[in-house]
Amino acid sequence: MHLTFLGTSASRPTVERGLSSIALARDGETLMFDCGEGTQRQMMRYGVGFTLEDIFFTHFHTDHFLGALGLLKTLALQLREQPLRIWGPKGAQALFKRAEGLGNEKLTFPLTVTDLEHGAVVRRKDYEIRAFDVEHRKGAALGFALVEDIRRGRFDPDHARALGIPEGPLWGRIHKGETITLDDGRRIAPSELVGPERPGRRVVITGDTRPCAATIEHAVGADLLVHEATFGDEEAARAMETMHSTAREAATVAKMAGVKRLALTHFSARYSRDPSDLGREAREVFTGEVILAKDGMELEVPFPDQAP
Amino acid sequence: MHLTFLGTSASRPTVERGLSSIALARDGETLMFDCGEGTQRQMMRYGVGFTLEDIFFTHFHTDHFLGALGLLKTLALQLREQPLRIWGPKGAQALFKRAEGLGNEKLTFPLTVTDLEHGAVVRRKDYEIRAFDVEHRKGAALGFALVEDIRRGRFDPDHARALGIPEGPLWGRIHKGETITLDDGRRIAPSELVGPERPGRRVVITGDTRPCAATIEHAVGADLLVHEATFGDEEAARAMETMHSTAREAATVAKMAGVKRLALTHFSARYSRDPSDLGREAREVFTGEVILAKDGMELEVPFPDQAP
Repeated sequence: MHLTFLGTSASRPTVERGLSSIALARDGETLMFDCGEGTQRQMMRYGVGFTLEDIFFTHFHTDHFLGALGLLKTLALQLREQPLRIWGPKGAQALFKRAEGLGNEKLTFPLTVTDLEHGAVVRRKDYEIRAFDVEHRKGAALGFALVEDIRRGRFDPDHARALGIPEGPLWGRIHKGETITLDDGRRIAPSELVGPERPGRRVVITGDTRPCAATIEHAVGADLLVHEATFGDEEAARAMETMHSTAREAATVAKMAGVKRLALTHFSARYSRDPSDLGREAREVFTGEVILAKDGMELEVPFPDQAP
Repeated sequence: MHLTFLGTSASRPTVERGLSSIALARDGETLMFDCGEGTQRQMMRYGVGFTLEDIFFTHFHTDHFLGALGLLKTLALQLREQPLRIWGPKGAQALFKRAEGLGNEKLTFPLTVTDLEHGAVVRRKDYEIRAFDVEHRKGAALGFALVEDIRRGRFDPDHARALGIPEGPLWGRIHKGETITLDDGRRIAPSELVGPERPGRRVVITGDTRPCAATIEHAVGADLLVHEATFGDEEAARAMETMHSTAREAATVAKMAGVKRLALTHFSARYSRDPSDLGREAREVFTGEVILAKDGMELEVPFPDQAP
């Protein structure tokens, strides 16, 4: 699983940074989170494919969604047929209904738009996306937690060979939890060959928000927390007023949730060229790794048991 | 007067080229023609100020207007108070009405949106913008001709001194066309000191279109014709089908109108990196200067009598 930051600027683009968007690639699938103006061009720049199947919107301020309209148009131009799913807080359906009439271009593929409420879960084969209310735009701003299912424990091939179990389908059945009987009558329980279950990965993306309890709750033990950090200490009052977070506040959330890594993004234009103050302020609070996102940055999220 | 090409790609952006937009700076004023997705960021990149007062839309396909929504938002963020005027073909008012509800952000400045018909003239102090129907989107695609007023002839200061006319207000009155009487009784007619009237400049911007008579008519003798050239010869059939022009067709229009210079823009993605074929095909027809626009290119348009 890896994230590509396609835009890391708050409210308006800068020369260095485009508007909010993150592409998350996992097991051959691409999920997008927010799609600010210019995202399709950033995808081209940074090699993110147009085969994505889902776009999750944290909220519908212009700088977080306008690029979707251009992207939809380009997908139609490519004669896409594969369905696209759009998810967002209350108002998503109404918004895309309203946007439909804007360009007068017809889509070539089915588009489904779903309004999500706090606590909604989008279930997939081996992970789920959990939506939770954040504190930004009253009743219509979500954070998302991607939570992978628990994985089976590791199978011990050396021990299996030592026990004289022939390599093949039997190994798979044991790994899947089946107790098997060998030709010589021995019964082999999975616990003999399979280690303890291993946790999946958890990545949380806040969108725009004040530091809030719901983020902490969903980010407990997360492998990666992507938290907005629009401002530095010097603008803490403005952060409160505009329902954003300072880097220090984001770091406090990361610390309280005990996350492994914290990526800060959505920087006010004044930090566009040099967000190092934000990094310094965050590191005073959070002792794990603090990453300052920039456009085109790719972040690998390894499995906990494979992390360096 | 100079033009800055902010986006020169057709339909969708490429790594090299943004979507359609041209900024025209003239006498301290900036006019914009089209405003595709990403235009505000291109303005930052290429040093076009945010004080523009007018945006003219050739038509309302997404790739020509989506950036206006982001730009309006950013202008509001900057607490702009100065009015902004938007002009476009039939449907402009309805479109911006529909777009209003999208972002839920309030504008801080008055916005006026005007639907223009074929033949409409936007009159300014010393120039006018003439809208004319082009052939792209039935009944709703315009080209624009910026036509400067005729300028007074040159005043000849050496001759004025030789005639013993004191430098000062008298010179200005003569230049403005007044016949004056000197203290010694001599009457000086403007024709003695002021040369023939000089034409203003004329710049024509087509937007998307098939080659058409209206463009030729408005571009007669133009100092600069900016014509779309989406395709090369190899896709002439596709140009016809999609109501676009090939470079050769654009050059034919330029030739028939007898323009001084031709700038080609709005290139299909296949020509994004190297539009040299388009240049070659156009030059086979049009013997004047052919310019292949690229993002960030600035084109100076000198007065005819000051041209090199």
